[in-house]
Amino acid sequence: MRIVWGYKTEYPEPDMILIDGCQYANWSEKIFREMNAGGVSAVHVTICYHEDFRETVENMADWNRMFERFPDLIVPGRTAEDVRRAHADGRTAIVFGFQNCSPIEDDIGLVEICHQLGARFMQLTYNNQSLLATGCYEENDTGVTRMGRQVIANMNRVGLVVDMSHSGERSTPEAIEMSERPIAITHAHPAFWHPAQRNKSDDVLKALGESGGMLGFSLYPHHLKDQPDSVVEWMRVGRWTKDIDYGEGSASDAGFPPMPSWFGGNLDFGNIADGLKAHGFDDADVEKVMGGNWLRFFEESFGPSN
Amino acid sequence: MRIVWGYKTEYPEPDMILIDGCQYANWSEKIFREMNAGGVSAVHVTICYHEDFRETVENMADWNRMFERFPDLIVPGRTAEDVRRAHADGRTAIVFGFQNCSPIEDDIGLVEICHQLGARFMQLTYNNQSLLATGCYEENDTGVTRMGRQVIANMNRVGLVVDMSHSGERSTPEAIEMSERPIAITHAHPAFWHPAQRNKSDDVLKALGESGGMLGFSLYPHHLKDQPDSVVEWMRVGRWTKDIDYGEGSASDAGFPPMPSWFGGNLDFGNIADGLKAHGFDDADVEKVMGGNWLRFFEESFGPSN
Repeated sequence: MRIVWGYKTEYPEPDMILIDGCQYANWSEKIFREMNAGGVSAVHVTICYHEDFRETVENMADWNRMFERFPDLIVPGRTAEDVRRAHADGRTAIVFGFQNCSPIEDDIGLVEICHQLGARFMQLTYNNQSLLATGCYEENDTGVTRMGRQVIANMNRVGLVVDMSHSGERSTPEAIEMSERPIAITHAHPAFWHPAQRNKSDDVLKALGESGGMLGFSLYPHHLKDQPDSVVEWMRVGRWTKDIDYGEGSASDAGFPPMPSWFGGNLDFGNIADGLKAHGFDDADVEKVMGGNWLRFFEESFGPSN
Repeated sequence: MRIVWGYKTEYPEPDMILIDGCQYANWSEKIFREMNAGGVSAVHVTICYHEDFRETVENMADWNRMFERFPDLIVPGRTAEDVRRAHADGRTAIVFGFQNCSPIEDDIGLVEICHQLGARFMQLTYNNQSLLATGCYEENDTGVTRMGRQVIANMNRVGLVVDMSHSGERSTPEAIEMSERPIAITHAHPAFWHPAQRNKSDDVLKALGESGGMLGFSLYPHHLKDQPDSVVEWMRVGRWTKDIDYGEGSASDAGFPPMPSWFGGNLDFGNIADGLKAHGFDDADVEKVMGGNWLRFFEESFGPSN
């Protein structure tokens, strides 16, 4: 039993590095304290859905203000070493990621600038066609574009990870193939488990695995419990349509289901570790799934290429 | 005698760290090779005169491209350690500075963002009134503004040096007084030596010295020899007037005088060291003036405050 910031928690083991591979929340001191108490050593946080460069910088400045206000709870996560230090101190490292390529606009120079400002993951597309590739809800996937190829090369050079969570069935394997460094699908599921355009086919997952890439599962939409509807609407429709877009939902099924009994938030990652053990994973593998694999991936991915 | 990149040079001593406290040039491989050959370990380069944030980021992206193209000649200069490494390798560390506060616009969050992107010096004013303080050519100097006080505190916090080279006679000592860390006047002269609005009074220099600040002398306008007139015009008038402004010059005296015999460019810093010796400075003091003082100042100024 650990007691951290007044929270009691039995999980995870204090020596286990726990990494959340993608989270969006209504960030606050309360949530930071929960992350510390839940033993979350690092979290990849979404800081952009549709924002352009200047708006994304403003989001980064907001995070700088939070780092300044809550230095005992959170630290910038730029390297695997930052994560290890945060873990040793009982704090949480915040790793910036973009769900879209909107922050780099049409300017290849902004790839390195965004990395300098702390970005470590960037999706090439978010559901729709982008300047770089095709999203999973487009009717036609024309693959990685001319600019997309240039951007991938520059992301590889500086250490900004290509994330294809919301990309199409053709663009995704093309990005895996073009990228000289392993890519990530930070939040999606195998389509064989639950068929959906957002989920990934066996072929894509095989190519991802063979390239040394990472797949992160998702608890969406549950982690959005605390969000006002305006945030969900921004995620879904940004500025690209005046209509409401429900993704794979519908007007009659637009709401969010209740949270499952075994995961209410940052304090409950231990239940996932328990579930893995109950399904036959040994301790070493559980440690890898809960954070060790991401830590290794951060180590190999966040710095400049050789 | 050293021969570097085909240039012969006797100065400075190979073990002397030489730092140019402010330079603007028409940057090119030729100039980088000259800097290496001249033994210039670091140079504070002006990357903004009137540019707003987005334009300044574009200038930084242009520099990133030069770092990528010429890694054997130049490296980013973010810390004193970067300068020492550049010196050991025979390369030149490039330290970014703004001659104006235009890159932070009206947004205090951009102070830290600019520091994250490598900025290490920022003038509060460039000749004119700014949002932060009053420039040296204004008729009335109302001192450091409300926003100016906030910006100085944030510059102190992150390690962005306050530069008052072009600021007014009241604003300058106020900034020295308000700043919790020593400031710099990177390019100006004592007014007792040459009276000019751009030069600094005995009172200002005394306050600067007592606070541990730095004064850098200037060879302007000679170092602009290679510049097209459009650059000089941008420096002088930016977008703030439709008329030509000659600073302390005039229409009949708008041109640039010839370079002095003892300083033609980056290969000639040794002549300054010689001149100092001829005027009675001992070797230890010459080393400090040529770079040691700036190196110590970088060491104490470029990181976060304690």
